[in-house]
Amino acid sequence: MRYGVLGTGTVGETIAARLIELGHEVRMGSRSRGNPKAMAWAEGAGERASHGTFAEAAAFGEVLVNCTAGMYALEALRAAGEEQVGGKVLVDISNALDFSGGSPPRVALPPEGSVAEQLQAAFPDARVVKTLNTMNAAVMVDPGLLPGAHAAFLSGDDPAAKRQVGALLADFGWPPEGIVDLGGLDTARGVEQYLPLWLNLMSVGGSALFNIAVVRAAP
Amino acid sequence: MRYGVLGTGTVGETIAARLIELGHEVRMGSRSRGNPKAMAWAEGAGERASHGTFAEAAAFGEVLVNCTAGMYALEALRAAGEEQVGGKVLVDISNALDFSGGSPPRVALPPEGSVAEQLQAAFPDARVVKTLNTMNAAVMVDPGLLPGAHAAFLSGDDPAAKRQVGALLADFGWPPEGIVDLGGLDTARGVEQYLPLWLNLMSVGGSALFNIAVVRAAP
Repeated sequence: MRYGVLGTGTVGETIAARLIELGHEVRMGSRSRGNPKAMAWAEGAGERASHGTFAEAAAFGEVLVNCTAGMYALEALRAAGEEQVGGKVLVDISNALDFSGGSPPRVALPPEGSVAEQLQAAFPDARVVKTLNTMNAAVMVDPGLLPGAHAAFLSGDDPAAKRQVGALLADFGWPPEGIVDLGGLDTARGVEQYLPLWLNLMSVGGSALFNIAVVRAAP
Repeated sequence: MRYGVLGTGTVGETIAARLIELGHEVRMGSRSRGNPKAMAWAEGAGERASHGTFAEAAAFGEVLVNCTAGMYALEALRAAGEEQVGGKVLVDISNALDFSGGSPPRVALPPEGSVAEQLQAAFPDARVVKTLNTMNAAVMVDPGLLPGAHAAFLSGDDPAAKRQVGALLADFGWPPEGIVDLGGLDTARGVEQYLPLWLNLMSVGGSALFNIAVVRAAP
């Protein structure tokens, strides 16, 4: 499968590297063609890796993965372009954290309710699925780093797209009992607003290598 | 110990009943003296239970527990009165959920960042501790309903007050490994913004009898 990964930060690099490892072709996209981080990544990642603009990465990918910072996600997707995004599955891993008022950051939810819904509103044909934004990048692609069935959430309005992304999570190593389908894309509001608690938990534990598990009463 | 429980909803009733069970004296407070729910609760709960206005409950309690709806918590505490609140430990279990725009509700964080910080700003001498707002009332007072060491969070600026509330959680049945001290009162922003995800998890599981556990990598 061909993937377009938008964003050159830790999340973008980690997802792109894992997709290559799984045998996929990946083009990493950034604002400008000569982005040093994208170039360095593509050079080190072998012949199935390439880099380019947001538009070039989006045109290349059969599936797109938004790993940009959430406050700039819409801008990045607009640069990718309506024609390149089309009706593709768009996996949104972003978090809109606003550090302009200092730390702790504020969750800057757009008027649509969440970044995922904002992207869906701007690209009505895209099949947006929110997932993996509730954890560190290393955990996203290697859930076995932590014990037990901790949780990866899925939000989206297109059931087939969610199944496809669920299958990708399984390829990453997520067991079925760890994958929690929250429902429609409006449930992205919940996972996006979880981030301040995640940041607190990172501080108190002194490590980003953690996640939450959902514990239910025995039926 | 004498407790003033502010609020007559499910959380207020559940906390008040558990405090009575543990041998404490409890006065349940509400806006007006003749509140039928507070009267019915007090009649059924034995001689250590009483009811009254917010001010009467606050005057009675050595420790106060805010179980009102978060959007009206400041109003309730103002009705309780500066003199009655004083320098007491104020346990804040509230959530500011705004259903005015329909469902899902919006978290209506006050300008101070969280309801807990709003109360602290209005009552600078009070020793505010945020806790237990991240779960169903039944789980708050009986964590053994769920398997394993799921989490109860503590946020507050007064270490002695947090220790006192931590001891109360232990009396409720919380094991030490389930109690997570998040740090200062500004970490109440995280637990208050978690509520939309909690609501989503309640919907998908079809039950409020659940909680989250924090899963960390082995050190």
